[in-house]
Amino acid sequence: MTHNTVALFIAYNGAPFAGFARQPDRKTVQGQIESALSTVLRREVRTVGAGRTDSGVHALGQVMSFDLEEGEEPDLFALRRSADVLSGDGISVYEARLVHPGFSSRFDAVRRTYRYRIFQGSAAPIFCAPYVWHISGELDFASMEKAAGYFIGEHDFRSFCVKNTADELEKKGLSTAREVLALSLFFEEHFGERCLTVEVVGNAFLHSMVRTLVGTLVEVGIGHHDPAWVKEVLSARNRAVAGPTAPAQGLTFCKVEYPPHFLDSERARG
Amino acid sequence: MTHNTVALFIAYNGAPFAGFARQPDRKTVQGQIESALSTVLRREVRTVGAGRTDSGVHALGQVMSFDLEEGEEPDLFALRRSADVLSGDGISVYEARLVHPGFSSRFDAVRRTYRYRIFQGSAAPIFCAPYVWHISGELDFASMEKAAGYFIGEHDFRSFCVKNTADELEKKGLSTAREVLALSLFFEEHFGERCLTVEVVGNAFLHSMVRTLVGTLVEVGIGHHDPAWVKEVLSARNRAVAGPTAPAQGLTFCKVEYPPHFLDSERARG
Repeated sequence: MTHNTVALFIAYNGAPFAGFARQPDRKTVQGQIESALSTVLRREVRTVGAGRTDSGVHALGQVMSFDLEEGEEPDLFALRRSADVLSGDGISVYEARLVHPGFSSRFDAVRRTYRYRIFQGSAAPIFCAPYVWHISGELDFASMEKAAGYFIGEHDFRSFCVKNTADELEKKGLSTAREVLALSLFFEEHFGERCLTVEVVGNAFLHSMVRTLVGTLVEVGIGHHDPAWVKEVLSARNRAVAGPTAPAQGLTFCKVEYPPHFLDSERARG
Repeated sequence: MTHNTVALFIAYNGAPFAGFARQPDRKTVQGQIESALSTVLRREVRTVGAGRTDSGVHALGQVMSFDLEEGEEPDLFALRRSADVLSGDGISVYEARLVHPGFSSRFDAVRRTYRYRIFQGSAAPIFCAPYVWHISGELDFASMEKAAGYFIGEHDFRSFCVKNTADELEKKGLSTAREVLALSLFFEEHFGERCLTVEVVGNAFLHSMVRTLVGTLVEVGIGHHDPAWVKEVLSARNRAVAGPTAPAQGLTFCKVEYPPHFLDSERARG
């Protein structure tokens, strides 16, 4: 028989962590959560995360799942509260749901949304400082928006993937093609400071793909390249051709979507 | 003859400072700025600030002014940039303007706007954490809004002033009456997290008045008192009767307004 599965909805500040994914002897988000769950359930717990964010990358809507063992019927409210408290500073476990047995927050995900925030100004931002890339020079918004258009649709994003990861995928016969469903640029105001936000929606992403995409858009924005340069970068299939990897702290993993009804279930919300 | 005056527009994160106002041997915002300006102008510089914020209180639109000496004609762009860099982390000098001689950012101010932000939820906020008061229990928004109405207009706010300060004002024969021009409650979303914001507009405020006012509104919001209790607190003229002082980190000094044309002048903006 299959056992019940729990989905946790989590937000975190990436700064104090060596990334999302569990690593021996390093403080990671997954490590903190698994340690908290192990304390609550009095057994070792292994979780699956919807997205493996790099060190310094934040999350607002990360989803983690784990299977309950036979006979385990935890009080979801107490579980959420304990996991929230025990996972420590910088991590917020704001919701727990009982979902259909066998649910995987990673493999059942159909859409992932990231936002990358840039603050442009010769003086540094104050309130947004920990969550943005501060760029002193002027950015040409119209050129960046035009460049962004070339990313939409299915492409081989090898030029936008960490080289080692791309090589490994190739060795395994796996594709570096991905589909960007939407890519929009807009301005947001947070605490009275204006950010230029790049929102990217896709089914799945390669390692550092969003940050490399943003670094490439910024190359266009500061005038180092024309928007059409993006086409060359895509066809080169070579990481060295793309722009720099934008700093981790500007990136937030915002939302994961699942097929309808996958998450309709009992829930405990903070 | 009167000399030219410079106005600086400043934002800061209150956390690392012992408040705005200069103090010997303590790191303050005014101290940092004056030290930066003294380096730039190669003389001692004394500034005036529009509002003396307490330790931990943030600012988005603080205005500081200082008079130039005879013959001083600094390049405003260079001045702004140097003051910004030299004032260090957590302070942003984003604009410098040459204003009419004798302008005082403190005494010429006609309206000041503060925002106090509350995050309500059993799980802690992540992105807003440094800039809000986190309250776990439920808050009755309608009651708080009703209570807020009693503050609008001119009242003796002695119950909302730090006792020592109120005693000193009384000794000097000065009034503890102030006029609250507007007090509104609304929801804001910052980085995907929802805050309940209390915005207070007035000509001038007593020491800790906004934070005590918010602490009193929260007493109503959590159901300890009815909205009409605010009338009793006002008429008591006794700090002990009001609610607690809301934590400093939730407060931001947002805006100062001056009579029309007071700030129309040459400017250098970041």
